[in-house]
Amino acid sequence: MRNHLHAIFLFICIVPFLAQAQEINSPNKNLVLKFELAANGVPSYQLYYKGKYVIKPSTLGLEIKDAPSFMDGFSITNSEQKSVDEFWNPVMGEEKTIRNNYNELVVTLAQAKNKNRYIRIRFRLFNDGLGFRYEFPKQDDLKYFVIKEEHTEFQLAGNHKIFWIPGDYDTNEYAYTTSKISEIPSRMKKATVVINAQQPIKEIAVQTPSMMKSNDGLYINIHEAALINYPAMSLQVDAATLKMTSHLTPDALGNKGYMQTDTQTPWRTIVVSDKATEILASKLILNLNEPSAYKDVSWIKPVKYIGIWWEYFVAGKSTWAYGKENNVKLSDDFTKLTPNGRHGATTEHAKKYIDFASANGFDAILIEGWNVGWEDWVGNWKEEVFDFVTAYPDFDVKAVHEYAAAKKVKIIMHHETSGAATNYERRLDRAFEFMNANGYDAVKTGYVGQIIPRGEHHDGQWMVNHYIHVAERAADYKIMVDSHEAVRPTGLNRTYPNWIAQESARGNEFEAMAGLNPDHTTILPFTRLMGGPMDFTPGIFQTDLTYYKTGGNQRVNTTLIKQLAYYVTMYSPLQMAADIPDNYNRFPDAFQFIKDVAVDWDNSYILEAEPGDYITIARKAKEKVAWFVGGITDENGRTATIAFDFLPTGKKYIATIYADAKDASWNVKPQNYTVSKVIVTSKSILKQYLAPGGGVAISIKEATDSKMKGLKKI
Amino acid sequence: MRNHLHAIFLFICIVPFLAQAQEINSPNKNLVLKFELAANGVPSYQLYYKGKYVIKPSTLGLEIKDAPSFMDGFSITNSEQKSVDEFWNPVMGEEKTIRNNYNELVVTLAQAKNKNRYIRIRFRLFNDGLGFRYEFPKQDDLKYFVIKEEHTEFQLAGNHKIFWIPGDYDTNEYAYTTSKISEIPSRMKKATVVINAQQPIKEIAVQTPSMMKSNDGLYINIHEAALINYPAMSLQVDAATLKMTSHLTPDALGNKGYMQTDTQTPWRTIVVSDKATEILASKLILNLNEPSAYKDVSWIKPVKYIGIWWEYFVAGKSTWAYGKENNVKLSDDFTKLTPNGRHGATTEHAKKYIDFASANGFDAILIEGWNVGWEDWVGNWKEEVFDFVTAYPDFDVKAVHEYAAAKKVKIIMHHETSGAATNYERRLDRAFEFMNANGYDAVKTGYVGQIIPRGEHHDGQWMVNHYIHVAERAADYKIMVDSHEAVRPTGLNRTYPNWIAQESARGNEFEAMAGLNPDHTTILPFTRLMGGPMDFTPGIFQTDLTYYKTGGNQRVNTTLIKQLAYYVTMYSPLQMAADIPDNYNRFPDAFQFIKDVAVDWDNSYILEAEPGDYITIARKAKEKVAWFVGGITDENGRTATIAFDFLPTGKKYIATIYADAKDASWNVKPQNYTVSKVIVTSKSILKQYLAPGGGVAISIKEATDSKMKGLKKI
Repeated sequence: MRNHLHAIFLFICIVPFLAQAQEINSPNKNLVLKFELAANGVPSYQLYYKGKYVIKPSTLGLEIKDAPSFMDGFSITNSEQKSVDEFWNPVMGEEKTIRNNYNELVVTLAQAKNKNRYIRIRFRLFNDGLGFRYEFPKQDDLKYFVIKEEHTEFQLAGNHKIFWIPGDYDTNEYAYTTSKISEIPSRMKKATVVINAQQPIKEIAVQTPSMMKSNDGLYINIHEAALINYPAMSLQVDAATLKMTSHLTPDALGNKGYMQTDTQTPWRTIVVSDKATEILASKLILNLNEPSAYKDVSWIKPVKYIGIWWEYFVAGKSTWAYGKENNVKLSDDFTKLTPNGRHGATTEHAKKYIDFASANGFDAILIEGWNVGWEDWVGNWKEEVFDFVTAYPDFDVKAVHEYAAAKKVKIIMHHETSGAATNYERRLDRAFEFMNANGYDAVKTGYVGQIIPRGEHHDGQWMVNHYIHVAERAADYKIMVDSHEAVRPTGLNRTYPNWIAQESARGNEFEAMAGLNPDHTTILPFTRLMGGPMDFTPGIFQTDLTYYKTGGNQRVNTTLIKQLAYYVTMYSPLQMAADIPDNYNRFPDAFQFIKDVAVDWDNSYILEAEPGDYITIARKAKEKVAWFVGGITDENGRTATIAFDFLPTGKKYIATIYADAKDASWNVKPQNYTVSKVIVTSKSILKQYLAPGGGVAISIKEATDSKMKGLKKI
Repeated sequence: MRNHLHAIFLFICIVPFLAQAQEINSPNKNLVLKFELAANGVPSYQLYYKGKYVIKPSTLGLEIKDAPSFMDGFSITNSEQKSVDEFWNPVMGEEKTIRNNYNELVVTLAQAKNKNRYIRIRFRLFNDGLGFRYEFPKQDDLKYFVIKEEHTEFQLAGNHKIFWIPGDYDTNEYAYTTSKISEIPSRMKKATVVINAQQPIKEIAVQTPSMMKSNDGLYINIHEAALINYPAMSLQVDAATLKMTSHLTPDALGNKGYMQTDTQTPWRTIVVSDKATEILASKLILNLNEPSAYKDVSWIKPVKYIGIWWEYFVAGKSTWAYGKENNVKLSDDFTKLTPNGRHGATTEHAKKYIDFASANGFDAILIEGWNVGWEDWVGNWKEEVFDFVTAYPDFDVKAVHEYAAAKKVKIIMHHETSGAATNYERRLDRAFEFMNANGYDAVKTGYVGQIIPRGEHHDGQWMVNHYIHVAERAADYKIMVDSHEAVRPTGLNRTYPNWIAQESARGNEFEAMAGLNPDHTTILPFTRLMGGPMDFTPGIFQTDLTYYKTGGNQRVNTTLIKQLAYYVTMYSPLQMAADIPDNYNRFPDAFQFIKDVAVDWDNSYILEAEPGDYITIARKAKEKVAWFVGGITDENGRTATIAFDFLPTGKKYIATIYADAKDASWNVKPQNYTVSKVIVTSKSILKQYLAPGGGVAISIKEATDSKMKGLKKI
C-alpha cells in the first residue's frame, strides 16, 4: 500500500433480530436490496435502483444430492449488517487505487426440519450493484455434500435488450446475438454455431457476464465473482416470464459441486446503472474477490509482446507442426519425422522476431509450436499430446533463450494442453522447472479440445480448480499465466495476480476464421471483460487477408485504426501486437502508437459507451505523464465526442491522433488513416469521426514549447 | 544376463499363405491352437490340450464407437509363424532364470468393406498355455478410435468347477466362491458382499485370473498379461452355454478404451495343464510382458519389513488420525487440532519399531498415518485429502529418518490417495522429492475410495495408466512401489521391476474385519497371484483377536504355523511381518522362521497343489545355500508329502520344521505348535501333518557335523 492511501472501515453491527424481512441501501442510496422469507420459509430477494425494480422478488436456494434441499423450510435465526469503505491497490489494473465501499447484510437461515442445519446468505450492496453468495458454515450436521443444482433466480422487470452467447459447458467463443430476452429461444439455434469441443446446454441458457438494457435505459449486468471450487454458472432463460435461473456446469456424472464445510458459493453479481459508462467503470467484481494470495508480487509485470503466431493463421507458409506425419506419439523420435518445411518455431525464425521485439521495445515474444506433438494435436481426445519440455529438432531452447536474454527480450512459454488437464497437471512441476531453467517468466496456456478427465468440462468445478492450481503453482515458480480457452474470468486476477490475462471469448484470432462482427468489440467490454483482462491479441494492420494469397476472401472486419484503439478499449496488462513484423514495418507511423501505448494504468476514464454501438476510453499510463485514448464503433460510422477533462488543468499537452481516413471503412480501404498532432488542455473537446467499423487512437504527452510550435490547439 | 545363460531363437518364417484356417502346436505338442475365419469373415479360435478341447470354437472381435466394428467381414491377407526359445533373468522372482519358449502365429485380417482397414491377431502357444492379443498397426484409415467393447469369447468345454469373485470395476477384495460355472448366477448376489467403493458389474461376470477345473481334471486359468493403456477385462458369464466373454471396464462415459495406432490390446492368457502344480509354476504371463523398461535396476531390492499398521486394526489403542476432529481440510493448521491421544505414527513409537526391526534383521518399517489428513479421509469422494509431504505435529520425519538410518533400517513411505489419483499425480514429483530428501526408497500406495477423476474406476484405462505412471515416475527417483487397491496385476513387474508388489485382493487384513475363509489362501496363488507378487501381509501370531479386549469375537482363521507357511506359499519380494512386535517377542522360536525366510529366490518347486484345498511349495533362497518350504491346507487337516528331491544330491542338511501341534486347528488352540530339527537329503520324504486351517514351514540349511549330532535323519 502506498503511504497516501488509507483504509476506512465502518462497522455497524446490528444486534441480531429476527424479522422475516431485511433491507439495506447502497452507500449512495440509489440501490435498495430487500431480503425476505416467503411462504414455506423460501428465501427471496429483490433489488431496486432509484426506486425501480432491477430484480423483482426472486427465490434463492440449492438442491442437494441424496439429501434434503436448501430450498425451503428456513427461518431467520440471525441477521447482521455492516458497512465497509476502504481502498486497495491492485498489482496491475485500470486504476491505481480501487475503492471498496458497500453495505452488507448477512442472514443466517436454519431448517428446523433438518436438525437446524443452517446456511448463510451474504449480500453486499455497492453503489454500482449487488453481490451475494451462499455460505455453508462448519456444523455437526453438514460436512460433505454434493450440489444437484443451484436455483438462484433473477426475475427481470422487463423484456430487456440482451447481448448474449449460448450457454455452453465448454466454450465461450461464440459470436454475440443482440435481441430481446423473449427472442432468445427462437434465435438460439442460429447462435449456436460449431465451435471446437463445444457442449451447448440442452435447456435455453445464456452465459455470463450477461449484459442487458431495459426499455427505460437501465443497464444490468449479471455475472459472478471469485469462482473457486465450484462450477461456472450459466443462466437458464424463461422467455415467457423473463426469469433467469442459475444453471451450474455438471461433472461427468451430472453432479454440480462437491462441497465441504466451511465453504461458500461464488458471489452472484448484478452490476446496475442508468449510465453504460458506469458499467464499464465498475470494480464490483474485483472488490468481491479476496486480496492477493501471494506476499511477494514484485515479479509480476505488465507485458507487451509479439509472437510467432498470426502467421500460423494467415500466411499459410508456417505451421505449429514440424513433421509431415499425421499420427505421432510423444514416445516417437521426432528427429526422425519428415520435416514439412514450413515449421514456424525455428531457432532462426525466433531470432528474427527477437530482433524485431528488441528494436521496437517489446518485452517479450511468444513462440507457439516449439514443442513436439503438434502433428495431430487436436480433436482426438488424446491425453499425452505434449510433454512441455521437448523442443522440435529445429528449435534450440538454450540458444533462443541466450539470444533473447542478450537483447533483453523475454520468451513467453507456450503450454497447449489440447484439453488434457490431467496430463498437464502431472507434468506441471517439470514444465515450470524447465521454464525457470531456461529463463521463461510467463506462460500462455491453452485448452483447445475436449477435457480430460473425460466427461469433465472446461467450466466445471474440477477444471475451475485446475486453472487456479496452475496459477498457484506458477506463482511458486514466479511465473505469470495467460490462459486461453479457460473458464470465463471472475476477478480472480485480484487474488492470483500472476494470472494476468485470459482469452475465454471469441478473440481477434477469429478474424482469420469465421470473423468477428463489427460490433463484437463494443460488446466484449460489457460482457467478457467484466470478469477480467482479455488477451484479445489486437494490432492486425494487414486486415485484407487475401493479401497472403492463401485462398479465400477473408478479412479482418475493422479498419487499421480500430485495431490501435483496442489497446485502450480492451483492457489487459498483457497486450500483444499480433500482426507479422513485416506488416508493422509497412506502417511505421501507425505502429508508433503500439510502441508507445501503456498496458498498465493509474486511472481510466470511460468517456462514452453504449453496448453494441461504441466505446471511448481514456487512460493514464501507470506512473507516467502520458494518456492514451481509444474509441471504437460498430458497423456504423460516428463522431466521437472526446472531452479531455481527465487531463490536469492549466497545462498543455501534445495529442497524436490516429484517425480513420474519411474514405475508410472496415471493408473498403480499411488501411486509409491519418496521423496528426494537436495541442490539448483539460478544456479541449474533440469531435472525431470514426469510420464504419473504425476507431480512433490518441496518445497524449507532455511536450516542450518548441515541439508544440506550429501545432493547432483544440 | 549372467554368462551361463544363453538365448536360443529359432525363427521359422513361413511364406505368407492365405488359407482361412491356421494351426500351431505348443513346443511339446501338448497344446494345439487353431485359428479360422467363420462365416461372414468372423475370426475364431479353438484350443486343445492333449487332444481335448480347452476352448471350443470362440469368436474374436471388437466393437468400435461411432465406426465400423472389428467383428466380421475379415479376410486373411497375411499369416506368419515363428518359434522362440530363450532365457531371461528377472530382477527379483521365484526363479533366477525363466525360459520363454513358444510357437507364434500372427494373422493379418483386412476388411475389404472398410478400405482394407486391418488388424492383426498374434497367438503365442507355450507348453503351459496360450496368449493372444489384437494389434492395430499404423495405417491411413485407422489412427484414433474408441473401443465400445471387446468381444473375445472363451467357449468352455464343460461345466467346470470355478473359483471366482464377482466382476467389479473397483475392487478385488471379495471372498472366493467355489461353484460350477452354471451356478454362478444363482450365487452372485450372496458373493457380492459390501466392500468400500465397489461397483459390481451389472451383468453376470467374474474377475480374472479365473481358475477352473474340468470334471476330467484339466486346470484352466484365464487372465491377461501386460495390461497397459487399456481397461482391465472381466469375464461375462453365460451360464447356459458355458461361454465367457470379455467385458472391459468403462470410463465415466461408458467408453472402453481410447486407442491410437500403432497399438494393441493386452494379451488374453489361458494357462492350462492336467497338473495343478504346473499352473502355479507357469511363467507364461511374465513371458508375455516386455523386458525391464529401466537400464539400471541395481537399486531394486527385496524388502522384509514390519510396520505401524496391524495395531490400527486390532489393538484399538492407536489410530491413523491425530486429531479428534471429523471435518478437516489440507489448508487447516493441524497443530491446532485436538489430539485424540491415540495417534500411532509418533516419533517415539516409530523409534520402538525401528529398534525392533534393527534387532531382528528387518530391512524396513512401514509407518502409516504419519501425514496430515486422516481425520476424515475416507468415503467423502474428496480430492485434496492428503498432500504427501506434511507430517502430523507429533511425527518428526527428519528425526525418524536419522534414527532409522543410524540403525540401517529404511522407512517405507505411505501414500494413501483415498482414490484421488488426480491429487496424487499433481503432487507426485514433490512427494517423491520429499522421499529422496528424507531417505525413503519405497512407497506403499493406497487407493481406498471412489476414484477421482470422478466416474473413472480403479480398473479403467485411465487408472491403469495412472498406476504405471506412478511406477515410472518412482523409478526416476529410484523408488520402489507397493500398490494397494490398484488394478489386479498382469505381470508388469517384469517391465516395471520397481513395482515390486501389489495387494489387489482380499488380503490378511480382512482377518481383522470380515475374515478370510480357511481355503482363501489355497485359492489366491491360483488366481490373484498368477498376475504378480502380493503384499499379503502375513505373520499374525496372535490369531485370537479377543486378546486385545477391543470387543467382538474376531479371530484370524489360521493356525500360527499357517501364517509362517505363507512366506513361502504367497510369493512376494516384499514381505511383511504384520503382527505387533510384542507378539513376536512372545513366540521367539516361531518368529525365527520369519527372521530366516528369504523373499527372493533362485528356484521354486511346486510340490503339491490343489486349488481350494492345499499348496506345498519349496524354494531356494537367492544366491544362498538355503531352502524354505511352506505348506498350507484349507479347513481340513491333511498330511503333506514333502519330497526333498529339490536338494542337491549327496549332501546332508538340517531342516527346522515348524509344525502345527496335534491338537491345533484354526479355531481351537491355533497357537499350539512344535519346532523340531531333522537331517534331510535329496532322498528324504517327509509325511507332515497339517492341522485344520493349518500349515507347515521348514527352513533348510547347510550344517556342520557337530550341529547335526543327535538329530534324526529322515
